[in-house]
Amino acid sequence: MSDIKYSDKGVTYPKGFLVAATNAGIKNNRDDMAMIVSEVPAECAIVVTSNKVKAAPVLWDKEITDNKAPKKAVVVNVGSANACTGEEGYQNSKKTAEQAAALIGCKPEEVLVSSTGVIGVQLDMDKISSGVDTLFQNLTNDSETAKKASYAILTTDLVPKRASAEFFIDDKKVRIGAMAKGSGMIRPNMATMLSFACTDVNIEQSVLQEALSKITQDTYNMISVDGDMSTNDTAIVLANGLAENSCITDLESKEGQLFYEALLEVEKTLAKAIVRDGEGATKFIEVRVHNAANNKEARNIAKDVCESSLVKTAIFGEDANWGRVLSTIGAADATVDEKKIELNFFNDLGNLELFKHGKPVDFSEEEASRILANNEIIIDINMNEGSGEATGWGCDLTYDYVKINGDYRT
Amino acid sequence: MSDIKYSDKGVTYPKGFLVAATNAGIKNNRDDMAMIVSEVPAECAIVVTSNKVKAAPVLWDKEITDNKAPKKAVVVNVGSANACTGEEGYQNSKKTAEQAAALIGCKPEEVLVSSTGVIGVQLDMDKISSGVDTLFQNLTNDSETAKKASYAILTTDLVPKRASAEFFIDDKKVRIGAMAKGSGMIRPNMATMLSFACTDVNIEQSVLQEALSKITQDTYNMISVDGDMSTNDTAIVLANGLAENSCITDLESKEGQLFYEALLEVEKTLAKAIVRDGEGATKFIEVRVHNAANNKEARNIAKDVCESSLVKTAIFGEDANWGRVLSTIGAADATVDEKKIELNFFNDLGNLELFKHGKPVDFSEEEASRILANNEIIIDINMNEGSGEATGWGCDLTYDYVKINGDYRT
Repeated sequence: MSDIKYSDKGVTYPKGFLVAATNAGIKNNRDDMAMIVSEVPAECAIVVTSNKVKAAPVLWDKEITDNKAPKKAVVVNVGSANACTGEEGYQNSKKTAEQAAALIGCKPEEVLVSSTGVIGVQLDMDKISSGVDTLFQNLTNDSETAKKASYAILTTDLVPKRASAEFFIDDKKVRIGAMAKGSGMIRPNMATMLSFACTDVNIEQSVLQEALSKITQDTYNMISVDGDMSTNDTAIVLANGLAENSCITDLESKEGQLFYEALLEVEKTLAKAIVRDGEGATKFIEVRVHNAANNKEARNIAKDVCESSLVKTAIFGEDANWGRVLSTIGAADATVDEKKIELNFFNDLGNLELFKHGKPVDFSEEEASRILANNEIIIDINMNEGSGEATGWGCDLTYDYVKINGDYRT
Repeated sequence: MSDIKYSDKGVTYPKGFLVAATNAGIKNNRDDMAMIVSEVPAECAIVVTSNKVKAAPVLWDKEITDNKAPKKAVVVNVGSANACTGEEGYQNSKKTAEQAAALIGCKPEEVLVSSTGVIGVQLDMDKISSGVDTLFQNLTNDSETAKKASYAILTTDLVPKRASAEFFIDDKKVRIGAMAKGSGMIRPNMATMLSFACTDVNIEQSVLQEALSKITQDTYNMISVDGDMSTNDTAIVLANGLAENSCITDLESKEGQLFYEALLEVEKTLAKAIVRDGEGATKFIEVRVHNAANNKEARNIAKDVCESSLVKTAIFGEDANWGRVLSTIGAADATVDEKKIELNFFNDLGNLELFKHGKPVDFSEEEASRILANNEIIIDINMNEGSGEATGWGCDLTYDYVKINGDYRT
């Protein structure tokens, strides 16, 4: 409908954003730090973890975004989450921002920092500091470096995650370019999920924040469990206004809605990429809940089914063990009448009708095996209770998940 | 303190209980049905799953225990959970009770039924019916058959679970004999947990129910997640009064407390045995929470740590990745001040002090490896907030868990 073009460009796609990636020596043989700088101060929206144990960079970012003032840059490191590191950890995040600010020529309060990796390990400040120097010297707006940066922020992720959008407001071209790293976990936002979106749209900070907060509910929070998040989860949007559209001051306006649609799609693409690249994942699971009592209950059901270890292992085993889905629905915080539920598994290869009118539907195990061999499965749940709708995304639980997480620190 | 002797006798340990086990042909080469009969009507306490999708036998048991009248028998089958099976499933549970009642010479409403296995599969009533006949013909009070019955009720469990207690009320010897089957799952009470305790104590039904309800909170519900339970979870206690002690009419009385202590220990032994025998489990994890704001918050923390896939995989990998415990605590529904938390891992091989005063404590990785190689780990969490205490039990998450659950139905 809307004339929005989507692609997988990185953070330098919009006007006026520079990026760099480098190996600061934290990890061997790969880039481990990245920096994003906006040429002009950018409005900033941020959503961080609701975990009561917050990592030092999250505390710093919250502190400096409290005043809703524009920001200039983000510095990211992998290898240490700088969480549970006490006052020393906080000072290290602050020092990182101070050093970058001095080089860029802005205030430390204009520099966001993000860390991801093992909890409880102090940053090696010699490495971080020389990394920041190198990053600053290598800032560029080219797309190859944006690509490099999308690799530099990964931890156990196997593939980089980028998404971009382009559209017009009046005759002004507006662009969004974003990258993310996943937790790659069975419960995605129990680990560090970081996402950075840059846009040249001209928008009021409060409208930008409203957009990001709403979008997070339908994207990153739908790959989550119980609202649990890691100590480091952070989603940031920087909007520097260089597209020179007339400023968006209302999210409900035509322009506001256009921007919202584009940013939603970009963030949703990244969220889905995160679960698709889940640690050890071999299958992508989409859970669609229809006609729950309300949207909130639909979300509860979708999230619970996505996180059920039993559902995940059944999908891994390509086993149409639909009873586990029903059991999970029954345990969800929602209105549940077994007699009303309809349950289907489907994908490009076909549809399996499994439960209807309070009873199992006969299905062919051969047909089930054929359909479940695909690497994408949609679990479609009709509650027939009301008009609540939600979609959640997850991945299967595999041997490799156990392998990766059994010895994560080494 | 109290003079209670504990052992691992089965359900025929108390006076006046008969038991039988048989292969009804539901499973190959193993017993798959069991029956317990009390020679005289027994007071009955029951706690069933809080899942809104309840299996047919659970619906039947709830219906017949509503009147709090004494019961005579329990019939158990494995192979099918008789859940999500509609009206036909309900009628099959009822028919099972009717058949057993006709043989025993009691009312159908005096016969409890329990099923465990795959959801959504109808009972094979020819097999069940001939199984009930055989069970009735083979009822006996011998301990070998009680042992056989404890095997017959297992599904993916590797070991049978029995527990018993003996004590005196005045000069009357009172006995409790119990058996259980586990879910053997990463999230124990998302699968079928069944426990059956028989006792010859003379006790009022309301006092017996009060005891079981309280005990469940500290035992079976502490191996659970979020209060989630399967469609079939059931804990039953039958008390037939044949010990001839003067009737216990108050749980707070000296005799009531003695019985409570004995039953608590019996049920706790079974609950711990269930997680110890968790599907694919190689390590037993005990999570002790001290000085939380209150008992409820202590329970929330203990349960969340027990169920964290990240904590479970780290323990499997013998990796002292304590940050995952802190992250889980931070996400729990509880008052959390990172600066106050003290965290230790310990067992018979030694103690690892890991986090204190808001910072990591240096520890030797060599020492950690040595301690974590043990198959029992205690995660000790001091919140320093209040006086809330709780203990939870769990197991590690392993390759074998994925294997078992990836193809459970075959």
